[in-house]
Amino acid sequence: MIWAQHEIRLSPSERGFHLITRQVIDALPELREVRVGLLHLLIQHTSASLALNENASPDVRRDFEAWSDQAVPERARYWTHTAEGPDDMPAHIKAALFGPTLTLPVSQGRLALGSWQGIYLCEHRNSGGARSLVATVCGEPG
Amino acid sequence: MIWAQHEIRLSPSERGFHLITRQVIDALPELREVRVGLLHLLIQHTSASLALNENASPDVRRDFEAWSDQAVPERARYWTHTAEGPDDMPAHIKAALFGPTLTLPVSQGRLALGSWQGIYLCEHRNSGGARSLVATVCGEPG
Amino acid sequence: MIWAQHEIRLSPSERGFHLITRQVIDALPELREVRVGLLHLLIQHTSASLALNENASPDVRRDFEAWSDQAVPERARYWTHTAEGPDDMPAHIKAALFGPTLTLPVSQGRLALGSWQGIYLCEHRNSGGARSLVATVCGEPG
Repeated sequence: MIWAQHEIRLSPSERGFHLITRQVIDALPELREVRVGLLHLLIQHTSASLALNENASPDVRRDFEAWSDQAVPERARYWTHTAEGPDDMPAHIKAALFGPTLTLPVSQGRLALGSWQGIYLCEHRNSGGARSLVATVCGEPG
Repeated sequence: MIWAQHEIRLSPSERGFHLITRQVIDALPELREVRVGLLHLLIQHTSASLALNENASPDVRRDFEAWSDQAVPERARYWTHTAEGPDDMPAHIKAALFGPTLTLPVSQGRLALGSWQGIYLCEHRNSGGARSLVATVCGEPG
Repeated sequence: MIWAQHEIRLSPSERGFHLITRQVIDALPELREVRVGLLHLLIQHTSASLALNENASPDVRRDFEAWSDQAVPERARYWTHTAEGPDDMPAHIKAALFGPTLTLPVSQGRLALGSWQGIYLCEHRNSGGARSLVATVCGEPG
């Protein structure tokens, strides 16, 4: 049985949705040794999130940002937590909607994703700074 | 320690929310051997998703579709990724909101769900075609 | 390898978002024995959910409720499942958006959360009653 855990440090990204699949895989050499298993990712923040979606077109990622901004508007009348700026409270909501974790299957040393699936860092703040992931790999060795 | 992994092939479904609990369980004979464990499911697509909700009333599943269509409208002015049809970009957003994975507890050989919980296939495209799940079972044998 | 599973019974909460991190940890003595592992939580209901977000300001949790009520309105024209009251069908949708499960990393006997992250019970019904969690701990002993 393999258990491994790493912190992955993501340098600051601009607000929006960013592909990080390659960066995640490269940080986890143990993945290659797993015949059947799981990879778990947690982003240790409350205003950024992780998602799994289309890995090809930048249009798709731009439209995620456009929809999010419309569905969770800044400066709505119902916000009371406004001291940290107009982008803060919407960022908390968006982070909870897309979610702070991903669990993904590992098969024969590789993530068993669909052909079009990639891991997104969803940065919901204007200046979110560096972000930390905790990556946990578990599985049966090959 | 039990580790098992299967692909589950779902035949094409019409757009909407569909109960697949029975189909998932029937595809996983190893579940019965697990005393304490987890079942992880990934749908390997970016325009369909998995959810866990009310397993009785078809009204509930119809209302999931109605709410989704209103919250993520087709033909909104902010979509730029429109080449694959008006249902495509909303499908990507809905897929990320409901999410591509489910992790569920296994106890004494059965999924430890609440009485009213069932697994939904959420088909967000008009003609999504067949869909693939990767199911990973892990746990302690009974 | 450690595998443990517990039911955690949450007494009735008023509609809204409530921090339950301490209560969850206190119910799981095995966490302290895990060097590297995972904690999985399932809420066994279809009108309440779990989230991970800001653990300090009550304003944030109040704004989660305000946004949810606006994004999934009661008495919208498209609801057909209305027999259990106006808060029922919106509660099902909110429960699926925030999600019924959380999987969290365990490191050196503790949940490896960010400094500002806490576990929320999201109670979407006016009178939801007591709620049950199934908590599953797995990992490598320290």
